[in-house]
Amino acid sequence: MELLDDERLDYIAGTELKVIQSPTVFSFSIDAVLLARFVRVPIQKGRILDLCTGNGVVPLLLSTRTKAELIGIEIQNRLVHIAERTVELNELNERIRLVCADLNHMPDDIVRSSFDVITCNPPYFETVTEEERNRNLHLAIARHEIHCSLEDVIRVCSQYVKQKGKVALVHRPERLTDILTLMRSYRIEPKRIQFIYPKVGKEANMVLVEGIKDGKSGVTCLEPLTVYNENGEYTSQFHEVYIGR
Amino acid sequence: MELLDDERLDYIAGTELKVIQSPTVFSFSIDAVLLARFVRVPIQKGRILDLCTGNGVVPLLLSTRTKAELIGIEIQNRLVHIAERTVELNELNERIRLVCADLNHMPDDIVRSSFDVITCNPPYFETVTEEERNRNLHLAIARHEIHCSLEDVIRVCSQYVKQKGKVALVHRPERLTDILTLMRSYRIEPKRIQFIYPKVGKEANMVLVEGIKDGKSGVTCLEPLTVYNENGEYTSQFHEVYIGR
Repeated sequence: MELLDDERLDYIAGTELKVIQSPTVFSFSIDAVLLARFVRVPIQKGRILDLCTGNGVVPLLLSTRTKAELIGIEIQNRLVHIAERTVELNELNERIRLVCADLNHMPDDIVRSSFDVITCNPPYFETVTEEERNRNLHLAIARHEIHCSLEDVIRVCSQYVKQKGKVALVHRPERLTDILTLMRSYRIEPKRIQFIYPKVGKEANMVLVEGIKDGKSGVTCLEPLTVYNENGEYTSQFHEVYIGR
Repeated sequence: MELLDDERLDYIAGTELKVIQSPTVFSFSIDAVLLARFVRVPIQKGRILDLCTGNGVVPLLLSTRTKAELIGIEIQNRLVHIAERTVELNELNERIRLVCADLNHMPDDIVRSSFDVITCNPPYFETVTEEERNRNLHLAIARHEIHCSLEDVIRVCSQYVKQKGKVALVHRPERLTDILTLMRSYRIEPKRIQFIYPKVGKEANMVLVEGIKDGKSGVTCLEPLTVYNENGEYTSQFHEVYIGR
């Protein structure tokens, strides 16, 4: 497997999965790992779509939890190229398909109302400065709502998920009201929420939300997940979720 | 001070405040105390309204945190009678006024857009069975959305709070999506959220939400508050908030 430019090979903690990363193009974060651990998936079969898949970490991890067909959508050609080689490296070509596409203009072979589960770790930030955009367009597109807004993501999730299928997102808690109101307005009823706290006594800096298309109203707020203890090490609770048992 | 029927006198933990309670009519819960500790209030002056005030625990506790004028609204005459005697008992007649009113038909001397802060510990349950209603109508009205729905509460909060004033509610996390979408639709932007967990590893069973009338979007999710430790005692964190330092 050829590595380009500043690409390097990393492992996903607690797994045998190898991932091609590039600090100047895209590196996965714990957000994607937590999303892939959080979402409830059918085990034996089904179809799962990951939007804004980046280097493909979410479908990669999901392949260890489900036998479902996995498709990742990514708008940046350069990232699709990384994700495809990553999938090949892990010999998961039969399990995971990558598609380079703009989620606002989905290709015809991605069929509406056909997915049991849709996941997304979308760009978090609403605005981007000219400086950020110019400094590194790859990172700017991955992090800022340049090609898709939160509303685009939730609308597309609603269009492509099956009736009673699940949609799971990771985002910043700051956007919680946006997330819940948009989900409900696109008929994805929020059902499970989990907040991630960097350490005890701090405000949450990440939120996981799972909804069900045309689900009944009523949401469960799962136990909080705290990442670091006072010594700056992972808490045992986080270790268990992130690294695995 | 005369106590009626099965009324008894309790203290609010960590304070000198006495409260008249009655198990068959109304007893305050930790929910009301946490709400009164959570909400941000002006210290020197201002006007604060508490809806669904019950036996008046929220204004009672707020009187220790602020010099603002305090008004409690309660629909049940029997509870207003308890609250009034409670206020008298604590010699707070000059500070707290109780009004017996249906929040959907507010008296004219409660003026719209005139409150700096509005608090509410509303009935939590959407439906009530005939049996619950017949067994004890006082408790049924306090706990179930018989005379006011969550939407009524939020609409009235929005009508009576000042521009940029605060609205704070305590409720069940199950209703989080309802709370946030209704608040936003009535122009109260959620700004601070805190979840209460009965013990480590359990789902949240209470949520505190504070919004600002016509506030900017963006919400902060405060550190989680856990009530009991593994020995069934209050955690030191909860003790500090509930009983006070």
